[in-house]
Amino acid sequence: MNPHFQPVAPEHASRLVNHGPTVLVTSAHQGRRNVMAAAWSMPVEFTPPRIAVVIDKKTFTRELVSASGAFALCIPGAALADLTYAVGNCSGRDIDKFARYGIEARPGPALGMPLIEAGCVAWLECRLLPEPHTEEAYDTSFGEVLAAAADSRVFANGRWSFRDDNPLLHTLHHLGAGHFVVASQTIRARPL
Amino acid sequence: MNPHFQPVAPEHASRLVNHGPTVLVTSAHQGRRNVMAAAWSMPVEFTPPRIAVVIDKKTFTRELVSASGAFALCIPGAALADLTYAVGNCSGRDIDKFARYGIEARPGPALGMPLIEAGCVAWLECRLLPEPHTEEAYDTSFGEVLAAAADSRVFANGRWSFRDDNPLLHTLHHLGAGHFVVASQTIRARPL
Repeated sequence: MNPHFQPVAPEHASRLVNHGPTVLVTSAHQGRRNVMAAAWSMPVEFTPPRIAVVIDKKTFTRELVSASGAFALCIPGAALADLTYAVGNCSGRDIDKFARYGIEARPGPALGMPLIEAGCVAWLECRLLPEPHTEEAYDTSFGEVLAAAADSRVFANGRWSFRDDNPLLHTLHHLGAGHFVVASQTIRARPL
Repeated sequence: MNPHFQPVAPEHASRLVNHGPTVLVTSAHQGRRNVMAAAWSMPVEFTPPRIAVVIDKKTFTRELVSASGAFALCIPGAALADLTYAVGNCSGRDIDKFARYGIEARPGPALGMPLIEAGCVAWLECRLLPEPHTEEAYDTSFGEVLAAAADSRVFANGRWSFRDDNPLLHTLHHLGAGHFVVASQTIRARPL
């Protein structure tokens, strides 16, 4: 448990992934669990909060998500770059990646999904919205967020606050091949 | 025309949106054209390169895309933050936003979509893959990239290169309400 985590209101949940961070997809079913990295996710609706995420049909995560009808997105902070890349490059079919990498997880309040708070800055626990066609054709799964929380040092009142004093809480955005760009410098648009 | 733009090979096209940048969706049909901002897009496949993007059913863009079966994603650099926010907050149904904001566009090589290169760092010209159900239920459209190009000062050989000497070519990631985070600081994951 990370004492800085606070619940995020449903209408703000999609904001957590609005800027395109790489996420950790966690899943569990009948005593087995898994975590994988996914660069490909996005919100699709604010209210109710719904997201889409690409989960390849060959992955163990896909098997668990199909079986349980649930998954969570955990958003790693900059401190977890190495771990994020590591869990994105091995399969959980043969090993428990939580044990292998010493990842602590607690069961989510809505669906019991494994939630990672140490080093992560937010999580969204989601009910799968079954869409057999897009899952098959595009490996794209849709989900509705039933519970969400974020580290209040970097996300509060529906807004991200990436500052010089919280660098390890900045989000990671995968460029490819283990290279990430870190969300740090923010700017505000001026009216034209 | 931006002389720095070079074609991007199909197998590298999805990399252009891998890290979650906010994009400008351009569209055209029978002499009318439009541009809107979209924070919600993602790749769904590398080969063939395919992407998903959320285009609200109330938008003029949606109407043009449905009619033409085509659209483009243009990726704005940091210099276009004000413009990106501006075109995301007005409808093109009554005005031509290209004219209103002085945006230069040229017709794309594959489908004739309006491509913006001044201030943008890349574009992807896409054929709509009609998916009536997800378009209706989630405002989510799928597309296959038929042509792509990027500013070679920031993307070459399939890789982004955000550096201190090309700050205006760093991508924008919308946090909400006109606040963007700029993709600047890159890190490389170490093996665990």
